Amino acid sequence: MTNKNGGADLAPLNEFDPVIILARPQMAENIGACARAMGNGGLFHLRLVAPRDGWPQEVAWRTASGADKILDAAEVFDTLDEAVSDLNRIFATCPRPRHVVTELFEPHEAALEMRALAKKSFKTGIIFGSERAGLDAEELSRADSLIRYPLNPGFMSLNLAQAVLVMAYEWWMSGRETVLPHIINNESKPATKEDITFFLDRLIELLGDKGFLRNEEKREGMVRNMRHFFTRGEMTEQELRTLHGIITSLVGEPHS
Amino acid sequence: MTNKNGGADLAPLNEFDPVIILARPQMAENIGACARAMGNGGLFHLRLVAPRDGWPQEVAWRTASGADKILDAAEVFDTLDEAVSDLNRIFATCPRPRHVVTELFEPHEAALEMRALAKKSFKTGIIFGSERAGLDAEELSRADSLIRYPLNPGFMSLNLAQAVLVMAYEWWMSGRETVLPHIINNESKPATKEDITFFLDRLIELLGDKGFLRNEEKREGMVRNMRHFFTRGEMTEQELRTLHGIITSLVGEPHS
Repeated sequence: MTNKNGGADLAPLNEFDPVIILARPQMAENIGACARAMGNGGLFHLRLVAPRDGWPQEVAWRTASGADKILDAAEVFDTLDEAVSDLNRIFATCPRPRHVVTELFEPHEAALEMRALAKKSFKTGIIFGSERAGLDAEELSRADSLIRYPLNPGFMSLNLAQAVLVMAYEWWMSGRETVLPHIINNESKPATKEDITFFLDRLIELLGDKGFLRNEEKREGMVRNMRHFFTRGEMTEQELRTLHGIITSLVGEPHS
Repeated sequence: MTNKNGGADLAPLNEFDPVIILARPQMAENIGACARAMGNGGLFHLRLVAPRDGWPQEVAWRTASGADKILDAAEVFDTLDEAVSDLNRIFATCPRPRHVVTELFEPHEAALEMRALAKKSFKTGIIFGSERAGLDAEELSRADSLIRYPLNPGFMSLNLAQAVLVMAYEWWMSGRETVLPHIINNESKPATKEDITFFLDRLIELLGDKGFLRNEEKREGMVRNMRHFFTRGEMTEQELRTLHGIITSLVGEPHS
């Protein structure tokens, strides 16, 4: 039922990565969808507090899209206090903080804060409330810090897995020391400036033969515009060959 | 059925906010969930290309959690080309870009770029592929820029609405940051996709007359490469006029 050997090869990346705590989750399919969102962001530790329909529930594995190992390793607790007892710092998500004086983060900042805490060997957790009503005042009071999502105040309607995804996304982003360079995955090498100049000279000569550039006043500007257009992108050798073929074909005789 | 007066009081915030384009979406409930994610990020413009089960579908309104007005205003197109014809710059989400030389963004950067473009009165769109297989090569070739999500490479499994949510979240976030003004260095307005498609169709027809595309096997790839090359940069109306002039001249008789 719980498919102990299935799914993607997910494993905890770090003991001190944040724990995702679902307080009184109702639908098992949402628990599965949360596990999927966690996997996307490299989060592994899942705790369930009093899931309405008990645990395990097969449907969760069906909606996890292969994040089975996160569900296999999920821990179940009767109360929130038990679920957070070994943690050092607790965050809770809260769309509209009221009546509380608690440190307030946005997801991006919260992720950075949790990274900093993990480096100090602090165990952190993020509590998400039940689908219907979120966290109640009693549950919110367990949080050291609140996380408020910066979304359209006129339409703030996130389901549980989406709320988890935003934090998982920010967590993954915060873990990248350096931003990945822009990788250009091309099979073809970029054309050299010399190759491009050769093509442009050829094009200009052909156009000269056709009389296209005979207006001396406009000639310089037009040549400059063409040069700018063809050199602006990162043209590949393959594309340059195609362009040569195009102009050869256009000036040639039609094939009969 | 389509509940024309229901749901949250959502309205387009700006004419130049990005258009969300779902290419061949399969499940209407996912379309509804996408509308919900759009609402969260203040996005309003939704276009559907050849939705598998037709449109409208009542179930979409049920999964939109009140984002009814986005669905009410959704536009449906038979082809992707029609759906993007009035746009100036097209982004596409792509988990693993291959074999393409296209500007590559992460969601955060893409959102900032789209903000900057909107300020210049550029209409932008983001294409999301079908649930099953994402965007095919033909669809990807329509994109000027690709967006790659920085998520766990060992478990990259986002459903359609989650993919939309990440962009909607970054879009909303980017609206709160100060965007550096891009220097407007073009006198001419950007060419629309429709104008560019017209040019490409004309070029392809001319090349067909000349026999350049008579190798049926290679034809498709060559056309795609040409399309990609000519749509990659931000072509201006002026440049497009020059290109038309060039091909007219090349096929014409020499002036004596």
